[in-house]
Amino acid sequence: MTDRALADTFLELRSTLTDDGVVTLGLREADMVAPGDDQVVVRIEAAPINPSDLGMLIAGGDLAAASSVGTEELPAVALPTSLAGQAARLGKPMPVGNEGAGVVVAAGRSPAAQALVGKVVGFLSGNAYAQYRTLHVSQCLVMRDGTDPADAAAAFVNPLTALGMVATMRSEGHTALVHTVGASNLGLMLNRVCRDDGVSLVNIVRKSAQVDQLRAEGAEHVVDSSADSFLDDLTDALRATGATIAFDAIGGGDLASTLLSCMEKVAGEQLGEFSRYGSDTHKQVYVYGGLDRGPTVLRRDFGMSWGIGGWLLTPFLIKVGQDEGDRLRRRVADEITTTFASTYGTRLSLREAVDPDQVRRYGRMATGDKALVTPQSV
Amino acid sequence: MTDRALADTFLELRSTLTDDGVVTLGLREADMVAPGDDQVVVRIEAAPINPSDLGMLIAGGDLAAASSVGTEELPAVALPTSLAGQAARLGKPMPVGNEGAGVVVAAGRSPAAQALVGKVVGFLSGNAYAQYRTLHVSQCLVMRDGTDPADAAAAFVNPLTALGMVATMRSEGHTALVHTVGASNLGLMLNRVCRDDGVSLVNIVRKSAQVDQLRAEGAEHVVDSSADSFLDDLTDALRATGATIAFDAIGGGDLASTLLSCMEKVAGEQLGEFSRYGSDTHKQVYVYGGLDRGPTVLRRDFGMSWGIGGWLLTPFLIKVGQDEGDRLRRRVADEITTTFASTYGTRLSLREAVDPDQVRRYGRMATGDKALVTPQSV
Repeated sequence: MTDRALADTFLELRSTLTDDGVVTLGLREADMVAPGDDQVVVRIEAAPINPSDLGMLIAGGDLAAASSVGTEELPAVALPTSLAGQAARLGKPMPVGNEGAGVVVAAGRSPAAQALVGKVVGFLSGNAYAQYRTLHVSQCLVMRDGTDPADAAAAFVNPLTALGMVATMRSEGHTALVHTVGASNLGLMLNRVCRDDGVSLVNIVRKSAQVDQLRAEGAEHVVDSSADSFLDDLTDALRATGATIAFDAIGGGDLASTLLSCMEKVAGEQLGEFSRYGSDTHKQVYVYGGLDRGPTVLRRDFGMSWGIGGWLLTPFLIKVGQDEGDRLRRRVADEITTTFASTYGTRLSLREAVDPDQVRRYGRMATGDKALVTPQSV
Repeated sequence: MTDRALADTFLELRSTLTDDGVVTLGLREADMVAPGDDQVVVRIEAAPINPSDLGMLIAGGDLAAASSVGTEELPAVALPTSLAGQAARLGKPMPVGNEGAGVVVAAGRSPAAQALVGKVVGFLSGNAYAQYRTLHVSQCLVMRDGTDPADAAAAFVNPLTALGMVATMRSEGHTALVHTVGASNLGLMLNRVCRDDGVSLVNIVRKSAQVDQLRAEGAEHVVDSSADSFLDDLTDALRATGATIAFDAIGGGDLASTLLSCMEKVAGEQLGEFSRYGSDTHKQVYVYGGLDRGPTVLRRDFGMSWGIGGWLLTPFLIKVGQDEGDRLRRRVADEITTTFASTYGTRLSLREAVDPDQVRRYGRMATGDKALVTPQSV
C-alpha cells in the first residue's frame, strides 16, 4: 500500500436484467478493495463504450423506450428487452466496461506492483465503468510517461483486434484482407497497421464522406457500400489486392454473402475451365460484431470453398500465447497516440452514461460518434 | 489391348448450356479411345444420379418446363435456366456422371492395366453416363470377384463422403456428429459407419416414416424435422451425444442456424456463469449439398464460437493423402454390399435419362428415389 489514503467507497455502473423483461443500468456505491501483493488500485480516468460493451450494458434493450429510473443520487436508466438467451444473467448486477485507463494510486507489496505506482496504465477488466478498480498487475499495460489516460483508454480491444486480424490473415494463408467498417476507430487503426506493415487492405465504408476520410489517411482501397457501383468497386478492389478474407462487424444482411460472391468471381476469372463446385480458392469471412442484429443471409453463389464464422479477441490471444501477446501489447503502448489513436464524439460522466438521451446516442453505435466515459468527472 | 474387338463408337450423354438460356441434355455418339499403357476400357453397366451430378446435368434448369428435343435416334431434353455463374460452361457439351461401375473389357500393356481385365471396377471420372470409358488404372477401384456392377456403381461419392465426415469430425476435435439427411443413401451409409466405429450420430430426417426406417437400421438418435417437438428433440439428441459438428446437405433455410443454436443451448447449460459472447464451445456446420437452393439464413443467436462452410470430398481426399485415401477406398470395396450398399428407386437407360418425366423425377432429389443409369440397357 502507498501512503495515500483511499476512499472507502466509489461509484460504479452495473447492468441488471430482471425477469420482468427490463434491463436497468444504474450507478451504485461499491466498496474499495485493498490491493493484494500483486495488485494495484487504478483511479479510472477514461473508459470507451465499444460496440462489444453494448450487449452487457443494455442487453438488447429497446433504445427508444429508455426511461430514467433510480434516485437523484444514484440515477439509472431502464429499457424493456427480451430475456431470450440471457437466463444466466437474470437478477445479477453485471459489471460493465471491457477496458479503460487511469493512474495507479495504490499498490501491493510485490516489486511488480510497486513499480506501477503513479504510472498511467490501460487495462482490460470487464468492469471499467467505475471510479476505481483493484487489478492484478498482469491486467495492466503500462504507458510511456506523459501519456494522457484518455489516449490509453482503448488500448486493448481495438488495437489488439486490428493486430489480431492481420495475424489471423497471415496464419490462415491469405495475403490481403477486407474490413467492413473502414471508418470506425478500429478501421482507422487497421488501416495504419496495414500501411505500416505493407499489407493490402480493402476498406468498406457506408458513406461517401468516409471515403475521403480514409483516403486522407492514406488508404488505397476504399469502397462505398452506398454507391450504385459498389459491387463493381468491391470486385475491382478484391482483384487488385487478392484479398480472400474479410472481417465483418456488421453481421446481419447480405454483406458477407456479397463478399464471398465477389471473391469467387475474381477467383473464377483465374480458372481455366468450368468447375461445377466453383474455384478451389478458400474464401473466409469472420463476423466479429453485430452492428446489424438481423440474420446473416448467405446466397451460396460462391462455390464450395468458403467459410464464415465468429471471431473474438480472447481466443485469438490464447491461441498466439503469452510471448506473442506481450509483443503485440508492447507495440500498442509504444504507438498509442499514433497507430492506435482513438477519437470520440462525446465524453460522459457516469451520471451522463445513464441519461436516456445519451443511451440512445451511444446505443446507435454510429461510426465517428463513440462515447468515452470519464468516471472522475462530476 | 485384349483380343476382344471394341466398337468404334458408343453412346454418351452430354449437357450443353447455350447463351439463349437453355440447357440441353442429350445422347450423342462418341469415338472409342484405345487404352494407353496404363489405361483400361470399362464397359459401363451402372452409374448413379447423385445430387452432386445434378448441377452439371441440368444447370439449375426449370424442371417443370423440361421438354423433348433432339431426334428419334439421339433424343435430348431441354430446360430453360439462368446463365448466372455459368459463363465458363457456355456452349461446351459437358460430360456428366461423377461415378459408375462396369467391367474392364480392354487394357493397355502395363501389368497394372492387364491385371484388371475382366474385373468389375468402380470409378470416379466425371463422365460416367456413357456406354464405355477409357480410364487410367488409378481411377478404378477393383471390386471382389462376383460383385454386381450395380452394387459397385456408387463406390466413391457417398462412401468416401461418409468416411470423410467421420474423419473430419475427428480431425477437428469433435466426438459426435449430426447429419441432416439421415434417410438418404449417404445417411444410411454414415449410420452404418458410425455404428461400426462406435461414433455417436444424430440423424435428422424429414418424415416420420424415415424415423422408423433408421431405427430399424439400428440408429439410436433420429430426429424428425417435421415434428412439432423438433427443437426439443434435436436439443435432447445433441445433449445426449455431445455433437458439435453437423454435415448439412440441405443448405438453404434456417436449419444450419437452428443446429448452431441448439448446440449453443447445450453448451450454455454447462457454463457456470454468463458470458456476453456465449460459450467457448466451437460449433461447426459444413454444407456439402444444396437440396434447398434458397439462401442460408443465420440468426446468430449462438454466441461467437461458430463456423459454417462448404465441404467437398476432393479437397478432403487431397488433404488426407494417398495412403489414407487408399485405406478408405479399400474399406469401401470390402464392404460395398454391406456398409456401403445403395438402393435405387428406378433404373434408367441413357434414352430414359433424357425423358422429360424422368428428368422431373430424378431432378426432385427425393430421398429413397435415387436413379441408377444403366447405359447398356436398350
